[in-house]
Amino acid sequence: MRTIFWEDNQVKMIDQRRLPHELVVNLYDDYREVAGAIKSMVIRGAPAIGAAAAYGMALAGLQSRAQGRGDLLADLDQASKTLAAARPTAVNLFWALERMWRVATDEDLASPDQVRAALIDEAQRLADEDVDINRRMAKHGAALVNDGDTILHHCNTGALAAVDWGTALGVIFMAHEQGKHIHVLVDETRPRLQGAALTAWELMQRGVDMTLIADNAAGYFMQSGQVNLVLVGADRVAANGDVANKIGTYKLAVVAKENNVAFYPVVPTSTIDLNLKSGQDIPIEMRDPREVTHIGEHAIAPTGVKVANPAFDVTPNRYFPGIGTEEGIGRQPFESGLRDAVERARARFK
Amino acid sequence: MRTIFWEDNQVKMIDQRRLPHELVVNLYDDYREVAGAIKSMVIRGAPAIGAAAAYGMALAGLQSRAQGRGDLLADLDQASKTLAAARPTAVNLFWALERMWRVATDEDLASPDQVRAALIDEAQRLADEDVDINRRMAKHGAALVNDGDTILHHCNTGALAAVDWGTALGVIFMAHEQGKHIHVLVDETRPRLQGAALTAWELMQRGVDMTLIADNAAGYFMQSGQVNLVLVGADRVAANGDVANKIGTYKLAVVAKENNVAFYPVVPTSTIDLNLKSGQDIPIEMRDPREVTHIGEHAIAPTGVKVANPAFDVTPNRYFPGIGTEEGIGRQPFESGLRDAVERARARFK
Repeated sequence: MRTIFWEDNQVKMIDQRRLPHELVVNLYDDYREVAGAIKSMVIRGAPAIGAAAAYGMALAGLQSRAQGRGDLLADLDQASKTLAAARPTAVNLFWALERMWRVATDEDLASPDQVRAALIDEAQRLADEDVDINRRMAKHGAALVNDGDTILHHCNTGALAAVDWGTALGVIFMAHEQGKHIHVLVDETRPRLQGAALTAWELMQRGVDMTLIADNAAGYFMQSGQVNLVLVGADRVAANGDVANKIGTYKLAVVAKENNVAFYPVVPTSTIDLNLKSGQDIPIEMRDPREVTHIGEHAIAPTGVKVANPAFDVTPNRYFPGIGTEEGIGRQPFESGLRDAVERARARFK
Repeated sequence: MRTIFWEDNQVKMIDQRRLPHELVVNLYDDYREVAGAIKSMVIRGAPAIGAAAAYGMALAGLQSRAQGRGDLLADLDQASKTLAAARPTAVNLFWALERMWRVATDEDLASPDQVRAALIDEAQRLADEDVDINRRMAKHGAALVNDGDTILHHCNTGALAAVDWGTALGVIFMAHEQGKHIHVLVDETRPRLQGAALTAWELMQRGVDMTLIADNAAGYFMQSGQVNLVLVGADRVAANGDVANKIGTYKLAVVAKENNVAFYPVVPTSTIDLNLKSGQDIPIEMRDPREVTHIGEHAIAPTGVKVANPAFDVTPNRYFPGIGTEEGIGRQPFESGLRDAVERARARFK
């Protein structure tokens, strides 16, 4: 089952807030609910957020009662703004909305109903491409993994974070399918615990050997020589290769470098934002204090405590030798390599 | 109120597992229950564990029905072994038991009842000295804190971690009392959440400005120049200055150094173990997987997941310029400075 899919003119998503305890699929027929699902992290992970935004636009087309193209475009513009406001950091959201907007404004489409149909087709195509892209990314990335490796992994970057397969975790699944004997150290990834709840679940489902650790324990395992490779995803990569990813990634990268452990971000080219010179320009989302003060209904801190909860941090490009993409491993210097990868990817899907 | 105290021939301790929600004092009249309280972390923090072990030995004296000194010593030896087995990393436990054993075997004490009384006196003296030591340590350490500083703090090292006052947090309380305007970034300290539950509570009680963050966010704040100083405690310091402390300390130290943020462990000399050449010799406790998989009764990971839960890590001496003690700030090279501090401290309490 895909993390997100289209059926009977509805968007269906696995509700990731209920894993690993329950596998529940939510149904959406309103783009505003899709925006809410992105915001509340029913669905998360940069590629999956992109697909959700695309399907949201397909829903918005169906929801609009416009009889003329101008009115339909006005409704779609409203939907696009609502979806764009859901989360600020993962660029795939904006990338998908731009792609849907190009279809909406395609002058070859004569009637509103043709636009509506084309939006559904485009969202489906984007989702199908995502699966294909992730599989190719996994194949390229698996070359980084040696038989016997222990791989440290942060957050969730698996099938749940994409339409299927995944980014960094996709690389791990591929290495496992290739018969390499690997062990994955899964850090729990506070505050939202995507590692403990989602990555552990995905690895156990697929029979990959894994051990769950507290985020704080990652240094202990790197320092004692028990880690060969660190793989992470990303929510946005700047043109110079700086990577915004789940909070805690920067600490991991610094400690990996200190211990000469290889560290690679793995991302589809849709996560690369050539418009931003460096990571300093990437907006960092500050999320609800309750993510820190509560786990479920359980309060872990004093009532009224002041909290700061940045959801992402930026790892400068000097902390890693390359970035995995569906077009191969981009190496230093990143400026030219990432631009080439983006252009090759665009040409492929023209 | 002290974290741990002696009253009516009983040991009384604040139950730290119930904070910040309830302030409950547990009563113990059996040394085995005291060992259990150390193990289950009713009481934790290296200096507090030392005091608990001393009071445990005082209880063991009262519990023993021995009528001769030989029989009493046999009972006390049993108690000492039980208490020593409670936790392996904090050396204060063994330091306090040795001190109590010297009293138990003092040949000037003629009768078992004199030994019993002397054990109670010695435990009381150790607890009183701890308060005095911590206050002096705080005064020395406060010189490291400048007006306007933001201090990042890991785990709990406050009044709850000692008999009163605290180690690293004692320094922060002292700087605050001196009128310095400081802000404390409190990391939550997974898996046991001592930062969120205990340090946040202590700072709020004393009116010190603070913000709670996930452990993963510490790098974000250091990288963006918002941290001036990192203060931590320790559970054992080797003769070369290597520091075993709560899991996650090593990552913090590496990231602090990378960002030119000053990092200091603060410890009483009773935490310095001159018998160990380096941190590699310090035993690291592996704790219950449930600390990682559950928060309260709430499961955060799939049932049956494999977990590794080291409670401490070792930060090599190259990551900090000095170690705060009650005898002043020990500077590099640590071998001679730490030995001198230990000897000065011993001379003071002869």
